Amino acid sequence: MRLFDFERAPNPRRVRIFIAEKNLDIPRVAIDLFAMEQLAPEFLAINPGGTVPVLETDDGIYISESIAICRYLESLYPEPALFGTEARSAALVLMWNNICENEGYPAVAEILRNLSPGFHQRAFPGPTDFAQIPALVERGRCRAEQFFARIEAQLSSSEFLAGESFSVADITLLALVDFSTWVDLDAAAGRPALDAWHQNISARPSTNA
Amino acid sequence: MRLFDFERAPNPRRVRIFIAEKNLDIPRVAIDLFAMEQLAPEFLAINPGGTVPVLETDDGIYISESIAICRYLESLYPEPALFGTEARSAALVLMWNNICENEGYPAVAEILRNLSPGFHQRAFPGPTDFAQIPALVERGRCRAEQFFARIEAQLSSSEFLAGESFSVADITLLALVDFSTWVDLDAAAGRPALDAWHQNISARPSTNA
Repeated sequence: MRLFDFERAPNPRRVRIFIAEKNLDIPRVAIDLFAMEQLAPEFLAINPGGTVPVLETDDGIYISESIAICRYLESLYPEPALFGTEARSAALVLMWNNICENEGYPAVAEILRNLSPGFHQRAFPGPTDFAQIPALVERGRCRAEQFFARIEAQLSSSEFLAGESFSVADITLLALVDFSTWVDLDAAAGRPALDAWHQNISARPSTNA
Repeated sequence: MRLFDFERAPNPRRVRIFIAEKNLDIPRVAIDLFAMEQLAPEFLAINPGGTVPVLETDDGIYISESIAICRYLESLYPEPALFGTEARSAALVLMWNNICENEGYPAVAEILRNLSPGFHQRAFPGPTDFAQIPALVERGRCRAEQFFARIEAQLSSSEFLAGESFSVADITLLALVDFSTWVDLDAAAGRPALDAWHQNISARPSTNA
């Protein structure tokens, strides 16, 4: 197996943390997003979506989408269980992971990609250039605040995002909280439950992966 | 169990088709999105995200996010298997489902919500009003075409979206293809593999659910 990776981006980090939690050693291939290597024809042949991470399996298929890569590794290496262990926990893990992916990540990305000069004409990942739309910066900030308020409410009554056990949903949220500092958003400020959770999760050695 | 549902929306339809494929009978509670019932305090207490579908389980928890509801039902009723049966197929099902959710649905929704007078100030689902941004209509069309081109490439070499078996990823895509007609987008036009797939899947009795 090989992981196509980029050190600084939040989605590859999710998979690296997951791999570290499983205590696996998987070789990595660096794809430099700053140099646009994800849009080179060789890489688009591997992932037409033009995103990292991608896992190349031993039988030569390419899996994109962080949650799918983690799901694959969970099947091969079930312990420690990070996708829940019965119907209820498995559903809640996938639910909270999806809420982060559908509400949190797009909001923070919307701020970054429409604000930063580094993303000029790159308002979306993938093979097509899209112009920045300045009005999306403020909208992204509103959406991000709304998302983190929802997370604060959940973490006020739950030690981990999807319930009583650490799961891949916590990994997804951690990478997002740290990603949000790129747009000067301090998700934990004024949110004591999120702050305590963030300190707790950040203390895990895997988060340095 | 009860399913909080809205007949016309694409995400509840995904879950209804899944339930029909499993041959289950789950009572439904209609939440009228046209009357904004999803934003009533009683419903926001069930799902702070203000979206349908939501499944209320027999032990009284509320599961939102279509894929999480389907995952829950798959755990309780494993046959027929719609999430893949081994590491590789399970990963590919989740991967293609996610590609539809992250690339396809937001693109079509971006067109609809920024174009239709019915979504004035409702450029996003959920509890906060957001003004429409007309520039997003054209961007959404570009993104949707790019997404369906990718799907056409995949279906040109695969009978079903995630491989050799019908899965929840096909259900997710079917609801999206039909949803795209709301913005006068004929996803199958000029895409013979997608067209054949669409006819094949639409012939399943479950799709009338």
